[in-house]
Amino acid sequence: MKKVVCFGEIMGRLCPVGYKKIIQANSFEITYAGGEANVAVSLANYGVDSSYVSKIPDNDLGKSVLRTLKSCDVNVDNVVIGGERLGMYYVEKGASQRPSKVIYDRKYSAISEADTSDFDWDSILVDTEWFHFTGITPALSDKCIDITREALKKCKEKGITVSCDLNYRKNLWTNAKAKEVMTELMAYVDVCIGNEEDAEMVLGISADSTDVTAGQINREGYIAVAKQIEEEYGCKTVAITLRESYSASINGWSAMLYKDGESYFSKKYDIQIVDRVGGGDSFVGGLLYTLVSGFEPTKAIEFAVAASCLKHTIEGDFNQVTVSDVEKLMNGDGSGRVQR
Amino acid sequence: MKKVVCFGEIMGRLCPVGYKKIIQANSFEITYAGGEANVAVSLANYGVDSSYVSKIPDNDLGKSVLRTLKSCDVNVDNVVIGGERLGMYYVEKGASQRPSKVIYDRKYSAISEADTSDFDWDSILVDTEWFHFTGITPALSDKCIDITREALKKCKEKGITVSCDLNYRKNLWTNAKAKEVMTELMAYVDVCIGNEEDAEMVLGISADSTDVTAGQINREGYIAVAKQIEEEYGCKTVAITLRESYSASINGWSAMLYKDGESYFSKKYDIQIVDRVGGGDSFVGGLLYTLVSGFEPTKAIEFAVAASCLKHTIEGDFNQVTVSDVEKLMNGDGSGRVQR
Amino acid sequence: MKKVVCFGEIMGRLCPVGYKKIIQANSFEITYAGGEANVAVSLANYGVDSSYVSKIPDNDLGKSVLRTLKSCDVNVDNVVIGGERLGMYYVEKGASQRPSKVIYDRKYSAISEADTSDFDWDSILVDTEWFHFTGITPALSDKCIDITREALKKCKEKGITVSCDLNYRKNLWTNAKAKEVMTELMAYVDVCIGNEEDAEMVLGISADSTDVTAGQINREGYIAVAKQIEEEYGCKTVAITLRESYSASINGWSAMLYKDGESYFSKKYDIQIVDRVGGGDSFVGGLLYTLVSGFEPTKAIEFAVAASCLKHTIEGDFNQVTVSDVEKLMNGDGSGRVQR
Amino acid sequence: MKKVVCFGEIMGRLCPVGYKKIIQANSFEITYAGGEANVAVSLANYGVDSSYVSKIPDNDLGKSVLRTLKSCDVNVDNVVIGGERLGMYYVEKGASQRPSKVIYDRKYSAISEADTSDFDWDSILVDTEWFHFTGITPALSDKCIDITREALKKCKEKGITVSCDLNYRKNLWTNAKAKEVMTELMAYVDVCIGNEEDAEMVLGISADSTDVTAGQINREGYIAVAKQIEEEYGCKTVAITLRESYSASINGWSAMLYKDGESYFSKKYDIQIVDRVGGGDSFVGGLLYTLVSGFEPTKAIEFAVAASCLKHTIEGDFNQVTVSDVEKLMNGDGSGRVQR
Amino acid sequence: MKKVVCFGEIMGRLCPVGYKKIIQANSFEITYAGGEANVAVSLANYGVDSSYVSKIPDNDLGKSVLRTLKSCDVNVDNVVIGGERLGMYYVEKGASQRPSKVIYDRKYSAISEADTSDFDWDSILVDTEWFHFTGITPALSDKCIDITREALKKCKEKGITVSCDLNYRKNLWTNAKAKEVMTELMAYVDVCIGNEEDAEMVLGISADSTDVTAGQINREGYIAVAKQIEEEYGCKTVAITLRESYSASINGWSAMLYKDGESYFSKKYDIQIVDRVGGGDSFVGGLLYTLVSGFEPTKAIEFAVAASCLKHTIEGDFNQVTVSDVEKLMNGDGSGRVQR
Amino acid sequence: MKKVVCFGEIMGRLCPVGYKKIIQANSFEITYAGGEANVAVSLANYGVDSSYVSKIPDNDLGKSVLRTLKSCDVNVDNVVIGGERLGMYYVEKGASQRPSKVIYDRKYSAISEADTSDFDWDSILVDTEWFHFTGITPALSDKCIDITREALKKCKEKGITVSCDLNYRKNLWTNAKAKEVMTELMAYVDVCIGNEEDAEMVLGISADSTDVTAGQINREGYIAVAKQIEEEYGCKTVAITLRESYSASINGWSAMLYKDGESYFSKKYDIQIVDRVGGGDSFVGGLLYTLVSGFEPTKAIEFAVAASCLKHTIEGDFNQVTVSDVEKLMNGDGSGRVQR
Repeated sequence: MKKVVCFGEIMGRLCPVGYKKIIQANSFEITYAGGEANVAVSLANYGVDSSYVSKIPDNDLGKSVLRTLKSCDVNVDNVVIGGERLGMYYVEKGASQRPSKVIYDRKYSAISEADTSDFDWDSILVDTEWFHFTGITPALSDKCIDITREALKKCKEKGITVSCDLNYRKNLWTNAKAKEVMTELMAYVDVCIGNEEDAEMVLGISADSTDVTAGQINREGYIAVAKQIEEEYGCKTVAITLRESYSASINGWSAMLYKDGESYFSKKYDIQIVDRVGGGDSFVGGLLYTLVSGFEPTKAIEFAVAASCLKHTIEGDFNQVTVSDVEKLMNGDGSGRVQR
Repeated sequence: MKKVVCFGEIMGRLCPVGYKKIIQANSFEITYAGGEANVAVSLANYGVDSSYVSKIPDNDLGKSVLRTLKSCDVNVDNVVIGGERLGMYYVEKGASQRPSKVIYDRKYSAISEADTSDFDWDSILVDTEWFHFTGITPALSDKCIDITREALKKCKEKGITVSCDLNYRKNLWTNAKAKEVMTELMAYVDVCIGNEEDAEMVLGISADSTDVTAGQINREGYIAVAKQIEEEYGCKTVAITLRESYSASINGWSAMLYKDGESYFSKKYDIQIVDRVGGGDSFVGGLLYTLVSGFEPTKAIEFAVAASCLKHTIEGDFNQVTVSDVEKLMNGDGSGRVQR
Repeated sequence: MKKVVCFGEIMGRLCPVGYKKIIQANSFEITYAGGEANVAVSLANYGVDSSYVSKIPDNDLGKSVLRTLKSCDVNVDNVVIGGERLGMYYVEKGASQRPSKVIYDRKYSAISEADTSDFDWDSILVDTEWFHFTGITPALSDKCIDITREALKKCKEKGITVSCDLNYRKNLWTNAKAKEVMTELMAYVDVCIGNEEDAEMVLGISADSTDVTAGQINREGYIAVAKQIEEEYGCKTVAITLRESYSASINGWSAMLYKDGESYFSKKYDIQIVDRVGGGDSFVGGLLYTLVSGFEPTKAIEFAVAASCLKHTIEGDFNQVTVSDVEKLMNGDGSGRVQR
Repeated sequence: MKKVVCFGEIMGRLCPVGYKKIIQANSFEITYAGGEANVAVSLANYGVDSSYVSKIPDNDLGKSVLRTLKSCDVNVDNVVIGGERLGMYYVEKGASQRPSKVIYDRKYSAISEADTSDFDWDSILVDTEWFHFTGITPALSDKCIDITREALKKCKEKGITVSCDLNYRKNLWTNAKAKEVMTELMAYVDVCIGNEEDAEMVLGISADSTDVTAGQINREGYIAVAKQIEEEYGCKTVAITLRESYSASINGWSAMLYKDGESYFSKKYDIQIVDRVGGGDSFVGGLLYTLVSGFEPTKAIEFAVAASCLKHTIEGDFNQVTVSDVEKLMNGDGSGRVQR
Repeated sequence: MKKVVCFGEIMGRLCPVGYKKIIQANSFEITYAGGEANVAVSLANYGVDSSYVSKIPDNDLGKSVLRTLKSCDVNVDNVVIGGERLGMYYVEKGASQRPSKVIYDRKYSAISEADTSDFDWDSILVDTEWFHFTGITPALSDKCIDITREALKKCKEKGITVSCDLNYRKNLWTNAKAKEVMTELMAYVDVCIGNEEDAEMVLGISADSTDVTAGQINREGYIAVAKQIEEEYGCKTVAITLRESYSASINGWSAMLYKDGESYFSKKYDIQIVDRVGGGDSFVGGLLYTLVSGFEPTKAIEFAVAASCLKHTIEGDFNQVTVSDVEKLMNGDGSGRVQR
Repeated sequence: MKKVVCFGEIMGRLCPVGYKKIIQANSFEITYAGGEANVAVSLANYGVDSSYVSKIPDNDLGKSVLRTLKSCDVNVDNVVIGGERLGMYYVEKGASQRPSKVIYDRKYSAISEADTSDFDWDSILVDTEWFHFTGITPALSDKCIDITREALKKCKEKGITVSCDLNYRKNLWTNAKAKEVMTELMAYVDVCIGNEEDAEMVLGISADSTDVTAGQINREGYIAVAKQIEEEYGCKTVAITLRESYSASINGWSAMLYKDGESYFSKKYDIQIVDRVGGGDSFVGGLLYTLVSGFEPTKAIEFAVAASCLKHTIEGDFNQVTVSDVEKLMNGDGSGRVQR
């Protein structure tokens, strides 16, 4: 089986126990996660040969990153060791009307200060079928833009499929900078994924008259967005997640897959949330699995949405479910009856 | 007051904190529980003279079982000490669309390898008014079938009322074996209790056109099931719990009592679940209390359902509530207002 | 800025982890809280110059009280050190149909045995604009009635606005005693706050035909109650919180502000509760902030209700939110979307 | 087997995790313990028919006391339910040069406010062989002196052996009051137990030239103390524990038994302390077991000291060891090798 | 680099927090460990290509075993998935005079019921340089003896060096059975490792006049034991660990290496123990690393002892140290000064 | 009373529970600490008017810093809010031969990137009697050197006494840079404090023939060092802490005070360590208290050493003791007997 390579930043995630706020916390649970690593773990859980590429510092936090990824069956042979610090983020779990809150402390991280010379893409991409990155990575630094561009060029040369989760992060860069950079990089992207806001914030393409905070969804609008992305950037496949935030505790969750001119809307799940961070990444993980495996579009989008529905019920960023867990839900059993 | 004797297996229950999955767990909370022990504890909580009979090993886990039961006022004078191991089970709490999961590690437990010579039923059943067992016990081993049969015969001789919770466990025995064994043992049973599936799986009696996972309930079907159980096995009293699994987080919960040819349906509670395991046993505990105490059928079924509604809000298998807690809910106060 | 003084009892709050019952608890989380201290903390969080007055013992629990209040920016220069013990209370968190439960162990606390000579109100009230107390304080002891009366008289002399949260506690005094005492003290009160029951229990004024446990609210009735309080006690401002207890897990929450003859009803929030204790105090904290700051009545009541809606999602009695957190919700964003 | 009755106060014990100080604590572990209850539990652990008598309030803390004692096989049929509050104490574990610290919050506890009418000693003492109390109980209140005196008189009438652990508590009463009261009660005592300070503080009898804080022990002095106790109060049996406090982490521990004119010194253990509170009570528990069982004096004192040596290595006040655990140590195996 | 293969049983290890006894425990920390797995992890930590071979069940506990080993860089490609249950053991940490206690619940584990057909040693042993097993494995079952014998025969054929840690477990088999079986298997062993008791219990070879519980060590005796092992079984290399158990908290720790007729005694460490279980395995891990790497005997034994000294200060069975950690201690820095 | 101002960096301190290593940790306890903040807290505990000056970011971690310091009575009016991140450090507690380990993640912290324009020393130093800094602060950045120099110049102008703890941090700067910078800043220092290594590493002044890791102390050597510091830099007061690291668990601890040409050696404590980090700062806190209070040199050094002895027994960097706690130890009671 050919491998899938995910490239990006992995961080320490510090999270107060239960619903404690950061200013109330006496201790933090630590896990290690990040947009692209979350996807790599999902893929490994589904049996895909999954590799992760990044740069992490040579200390016990960096070691813990490696231990975590290896325990999840993600290949880390191409993680570069070096740099000064591991990025960290603090997650404060919201409830009801109180939003979850993420504080990033990722500046000056090893990957954000990495150099193009750190990564030998010819060697990394040997036997690779698919390359995945997100809009977060080029937002980290100008050097990260260069590294990403280099990787994408090599992918093009080698005929490797490229997917990108737009993932706009307003505290990493401006609208304008995001647009400028991502517009260029999109030229290499085959599969484009985003949520309701990303297309607008990153590519300037918007679905009319959808008030996200009010939880309404405009199907036609999303189809139009996907078509436009295809037209402007040549992505034959576009996927958009559709989150209806009733509150921090309960969300509606569905998605649309646009492929070869056709659009497919998944069923919608109303989810009682355990941990929402990483939800989008688990959608990408599920989707890439189906695309690598050649699922039909209707099954593909249902798998991806069911997978990420389950992630919302799991602590931590990683989606710790198997193909059979997802298929059970996807095939209609969301009753939550005890499995003995 | 005459005593109620419950006979079966009690195990260690290991449960990750919060919503962590077993593969994520760094620690497990331990309690000790089991279908019949859960009933014995409910009865003791309601003031019934409650005795538990089983076999547990002579080590610190066995000691912990005794400490737990004694702390709950359950008489353990007839628990036999010996055998090799205490059965264990692992409970992974589900949420929303993710089901709870129970992993059993109960094979070769002391009780499953016990011998008929371990139990002197003449002495155990002195001053006993009621004997309770479940379909789990004979499923443990052929010796357990023999021990159960012996106990039931003694009950018949002594005029002790016998109740049985069918409790089908598909990983302990097959459909066919269950049917063969339970059909024989049912001859001794006065009060038969089950959930929507048990009658079908154990006795081959089914309510037509009820799709449990879809959460529909067919009243007429359940009445027919009860009548048939009465006709075939002579049980004058049959109780069926009716769970509507909207998700792992929210369930509808009600029940039917069939007594002397009449059927009584309880009110239905929509429950935000804290811990669902042991829910059925808490229904049996409530029901046996009302039957031993001579409640009217309508009050009996309402008490049993209200009691088990409360159990779903309590951590662990045991239903840690009092008669007055149950009566408050049964009499209509489910508002959850703070009690100061 | 002139300061607000809150006077009352602060206690240790011992709370089992998660949904464990007290009889199941192996450990208790400890925080320090109390009706008036909760208000003082809210005010400090909103930037008000907030002072707390009480009496606490000279031991490590008393020290912990001071540390807690100081960490929240509440001035404790007028907390008297002495007396025998710190009051304690145990909070058992309810869920679904199981109510939360509070066990008080506050008898013989330092403040309940304090003497009028402990407090030099002339000095305490220097530069004070507002004085707040609740119906709990005079319920503690006859001496506490005297101390409160003395404070209120001084307030009148100095033209300090007085607010009172009626807060009836049936285990501290009888209906009759409450009525007798509070009727007298109400003469000094400018702003009267209560929930649906307080006016009836403490002042004997009731809203007809509102069945609180059934969750119905009778707007006209509450307006009538407020008017009557104004007529009988001269309070130009009356606020009533309107809780609809669907269950221990989900409540409806809104409030009415009656000011200068006009009544203003807030929007209603349906809340998935994290911790309900202290919810009423957080309303008072929000309301006093708006009154001290001269908000319009419609904004005042919306701020107070939004503030206390958020408190229900926060562990512990204290409302750990900022003005901007409240305004975001008040201005319509209750979607709980992640803040990055 | 005849039973042993222990009478006194049992409290909630709140203890920060690890070596946290109370002012640093965010949570407390709760257990339930007290001087005489600790002895009752030791006796039950050794297989003695052990009964505990006290008064505790009718709330969830009182219920937890009963659950705890029952789990340890202590008979609680004569625990009176009533009164206002359960006494509590806070234990801060010391280390090295930092002493452990105990804060009591026991005033107004149910037992301290109990009345002689609460206890029907004729019924309580049926089939009783031995009665144990400590100097703490009469120190609680004048009513407790009366209750104790009544119990002791009944014991004399019935020929029940009486033991008393002097246990001077300077924050409960003065030197003078202790002397006055205990001098009277000692008339009923057959077995007197104390540590190095008690005899001096309570009875005014001192061992010359032993500087306890310097850790020196003067054998002759202790023999003289025991003889004098025998002479003045007629106790044929006197036991004195000899603690050498090198630090809060390491203590030397031994004891002397004086019986029928002969004195027996035990071997000394140097202990790395896990939890020192309850150490003295575990000595009494061990000693009473040997006296009830008719051990030779040399074996008796070695058993009592070995038992309490082990208690210092166990969390909580209760000594959770068996006769065989103690005998193994007493017979020389203190090597701590892993038992598999 | 050629790989080292370790073969044996890995179990779940459940351990109460801190110094709680099992009967006091409300929760257990879980890790996964076992004699040969502990060695495999040590080797991987030192950079050796380390493989582990065993059989584990197909459930979440089995998955957790794999995650753990993979996170430690141990190759698990030859772990067979199947069988009924994962063995478990409970570790109660001792202190001072109270011994640590291990309760095994390993009967009927997947590996103990494995068959010779489960393991294809020709394929497993490809590119293998060293094979390690312990006396525990053949003690599990007769089938395990067969499997072990088969593996050893293949090793001989392929010229693979074989090491064996005698590790006598008295609750798994008798003296006599151990002797019979191990005497046969020793024919294949090149490097024999044991503690003070193993040689006597397993091989019937004893060092005269060493009283282990008294902590004396007889150098000449140990040399004689090693010589005799060489003579009888042809092991050119013999290592014996020398533990002096002053108490459960403090141990003396050293070892002897006998190689090619010469004996080398290491320096002795007095250790304040954090977690002693796995200490012997960490010695083996250190020793095999040095033998595989071709260290001089004096450096080899010092490395192995320093490595295992450090393990005693680390929670869990696994020795989480690096070569440089060990070398620092081995080169004399045991001062424990803070590393910044 | 005039105030003492401490200036430096305060960080978040993340520490695994118990003796877990960082790579084993699933959660970290968080406190907030730093060399100069630790001193400020000690001073506040002793009743000194203590102010802390630093720069911290405007996020929830920064808020937590303020809450912590305010809870400890440290004035934070001159803490500047701004900059990008709060420095963090990870503390892994060592034991026996395994050293504790500190991983710093402090680069780019708000204070390290602060500008001279952030601090208006004229205003900050109003009513200040004493100014304290450490060698860590100028090591953070060149801007920090400038800020420190400016502060020191103002101190000189205003006649404020200046103390400096040399505190060499080899991972922040080189030997050479430290020497160059500190040599200049020492011109402003009145009281110089250091441990055995600092004088050599920072000032190039060494005590001959003292092998610190071997735990020997050369009194004459230290006197010579102090004299030389006085001669070269004009510090009339020099204090040197003398740590004898027997292991990570047990240290000898004493100190020397050199004042006006005389040297005073304290008694030595052998300490069983709970938490060693912050030990040196607690010495400085104790010493500054005595110097500000005008203690005799012999009492001053004994107080400082006793204070810091106690700190080693307390979790976290802060020394949570009172003057009376220290005096009790200083006056000879290190027996650790329980305080009731």
